[in-house]
Amino acid sequence: MNTITANPHVTATFSPPVMRAREWIAGRTFPPDRPLLNLSQAAPTAPPPAQMRQAMAEIIMNDPGAHLYGPVLGLPELREAVAERWSQDYGGRIVSDQVAITSGCNQAFCAAVASLARQGDNVILPTPWYFNHRMWLEMSGIETRALPVRDRMFPDVAEAERLIDAHTRAIVLVTPNNPTGAEYPAGLMRAFLELARRHGLALIVDETYRDFHSSDASPHDLFTDPDWHDTLIHLYSFSKAFRLTGHRVGAVTAGAGLMVQIEKFLDTVTICANQLGQRAALYGLRHMSDWLRGERSEILSRKALIDGLIDTLDGWERLGSGAYFAYLRHPYDMTSDQLTQRLVAEQSLLVLPGTMFAPEGTDGFAEATLRVAFANAGEEGLRQMAHRLAAFTP
Amino acid sequence: MNTITANPHVTATFSPPVMRAREWIAGRTFPPDRPLLNLSQAAPTAPPPAQMRQAMAEIIMNDPGAHLYGPVLGLPELREAVAERWSQDYGGRIVSDQVAITSGCNQAFCAAVASLARQGDNVILPTPWYFNHRMWLEMSGIETRALPVRDRMFPDVAEAERLIDAHTRAIVLVTPNNPTGAEYPAGLMRAFLELARRHGLALIVDETYRDFHSSDASPHDLFTDPDWHDTLIHLYSFSKAFRLTGHRVGAVTAGAGLMVQIEKFLDTVTICANQLGQRAALYGLRHMSDWLRGERSEILSRKALIDGLIDTLDGWERLGSGAYFAYLRHPYDMTSDQLTQRLVAEQSLLVLPGTMFAPEGTDGFAEATLRVAFANAGEEGLRQMAHRLAAFTP
Repeated sequence: MNTITANPHVTATFSPPVMRAREWIAGRTFPPDRPLLNLSQAAPTAPPPAQMRQAMAEIIMNDPGAHLYGPVLGLPELREAVAERWSQDYGGRIVSDQVAITSGCNQAFCAAVASLARQGDNVILPTPWYFNHRMWLEMSGIETRALPVRDRMFPDVAEAERLIDAHTRAIVLVTPNNPTGAEYPAGLMRAFLELARRHGLALIVDETYRDFHSSDASPHDLFTDPDWHDTLIHLYSFSKAFRLTGHRVGAVTAGAGLMVQIEKFLDTVTICANQLGQRAALYGLRHMSDWLRGERSEILSRKALIDGLIDTLDGWERLGSGAYFAYLRHPYDMTSDQLTQRLVAEQSLLVLPGTMFAPEGTDGFAEATLRVAFANAGEEGLRQMAHRLAAFTP
Repeated sequence: MNTITANPHVTATFSPPVMRAREWIAGRTFPPDRPLLNLSQAAPTAPPPAQMRQAMAEIIMNDPGAHLYGPVLGLPELREAVAERWSQDYGGRIVSDQVAITSGCNQAFCAAVASLARQGDNVILPTPWYFNHRMWLEMSGIETRALPVRDRMFPDVAEAERLIDAHTRAIVLVTPNNPTGAEYPAGLMRAFLELARRHGLALIVDETYRDFHSSDASPHDLFTDPDWHDTLIHLYSFSKAFRLTGHRVGAVTAGAGLMVQIEKFLDTVTICANQLGQRAALYGLRHMSDWLRGERSEILSRKALIDGLIDTLDGWERLGSGAYFAYLRHPYDMTSDQLTQRLVAEQSLLVLPGTMFAPEGTDGFAEATLRVAFANAGEEGLRQMAHRLAAFTP
């Protein structure tokens, strides 16, 4: 008798880091005067406002379509609303056939990559990376070409070009970035678009955190290029904007040719994004722009506060901050993995080590850095964080 | 300048057949005295009963967790409830660590296959097959080894064994079957388990339609094998039982070792199944067993009716029927693809051709057969169907 063995590509892939971090705090008790301060999550921790919950409850009761299968590529009204909003926000022309609704933005990434690349191909990913991107590439047998970020946590175009070979299929940019918080300048984005186009690659731009960008203007002009769809694939998440993480709704915008391939993937992997989440996202786009502006303003004020607090901490360096994240260099002679676990034990503070966002054994950068997801903490929480980092003795 | 090209594995994969069938009826008008009779869908067309909708609306308003991320492998209470129910229904021992909740049963299949196989491997799939299974294998670069069903639409164990080679990773059985309706006997299931185990393969058993099985007893004894988890992977859908298709909730039951790999896949592809759907499924398991028994009884009476009706039709042969489906051989000298499109145009009747469930160019079986998804039609609809099939003139 033989025994079944797992797919070696999946076996080689690391386990979900967020689940690992949950294990650090599972079953642990924290002192009453120093309760757990969890700054590990890139997600809202409160439900949507009552107005939206009420609308969702009414849909559940009165809209039979909310309980049935819908089109693979999404609710037509939602695709239309996204196309209109993107056209307006980015000053370009995007039509609804170029938009698909996905079960969250992770799935948008998986669909985009699957439509482009297979085992033996490679994809360029700036590091520190968003871990689920790396996981999908690895379990698909696609090589990840790590592009270490440099000054201000920006990837370098010339360095990216040197990584390209005949098997390269795409370059991935996340902006505002997870984990670094960096907001890539419009000129840099445009240079990456041109690099990708020159080499016949796709440029995958993940703007999960776009609604919390610090600029009031459009963060890039990629969609103003009338031929954007020959190169650009754009990813978005409704989870962060409207606090819909539990409902799993994202979007991918791409040329109609790739969309045919993306449709096959989405049909096979989930048939369609869940119908209530799609209706909630549509409600949000139609009725909650003012509310979202308020959310953004709150996040930006938290960013300003944490920036100031970090800058007063002895030996700590703020490498990037934006959207939900600050990315910090710590001053200690220990790895970020050791440090973050000691911060849980000794300061009741959970943040994620740089090692969760990088390949093993690079130049020590990952070991020297960590990510703070500050968006869920109010002023008191952020001051507590700074206080606890300062109180830590190595 | 180059242009991006799509992943050839995905390009080679056919488009979603259900979307193609929708195109046959899109924009078409039907005579008022002969409205469209759509027997193409393997899904309920009504929302869940008011009792469940009310429970869901209350969750939306009052349970913040329904809006937030949850554990990758699913809501612990739901995993526990599934483990208990399966243990009871199948007379075996299944624990909650062996259950994961997925965004529908298609995703359960994708996760199971991804955990086992990669490009260059092969998987044995009886034909006619469920098309999304074939699509996932093809877009993953995994060869599909077609195992044509024989007598009573059952796959043959010895024939399956002849297809196995060093690259075979799994055998897939769907019972009750989509598209044939065949209910595989317990002895046949057990023989496949033993075959798979002897060769170190996984046996993937998809019981999406288990709640509508015609037998009151357990349909197989695979879970009574104390070592089931060394070979068996079991898939289930809450969509059909509780009319939750739009909410995307399924389950995969497997050994704890594979579950580690499945968790990586689910995390990366959707992070978690949507939280409301999971809570609705839990509500269904806890409170709707009686209701579900009534649904089953209704489906079984429709099956008895359609069986009798088909048997009176000149030249038609009923090859299989069960759960939502009857699988028929037509008497005409045309392909099933031609016939089904003419049935739309001339009889306002939509059913799916056998060619949607089979590889191209086999022995004519697919061209000679079609699938009727009868579950959504009441007595009058089923009589209409028989009437229209009889009225068709080639």
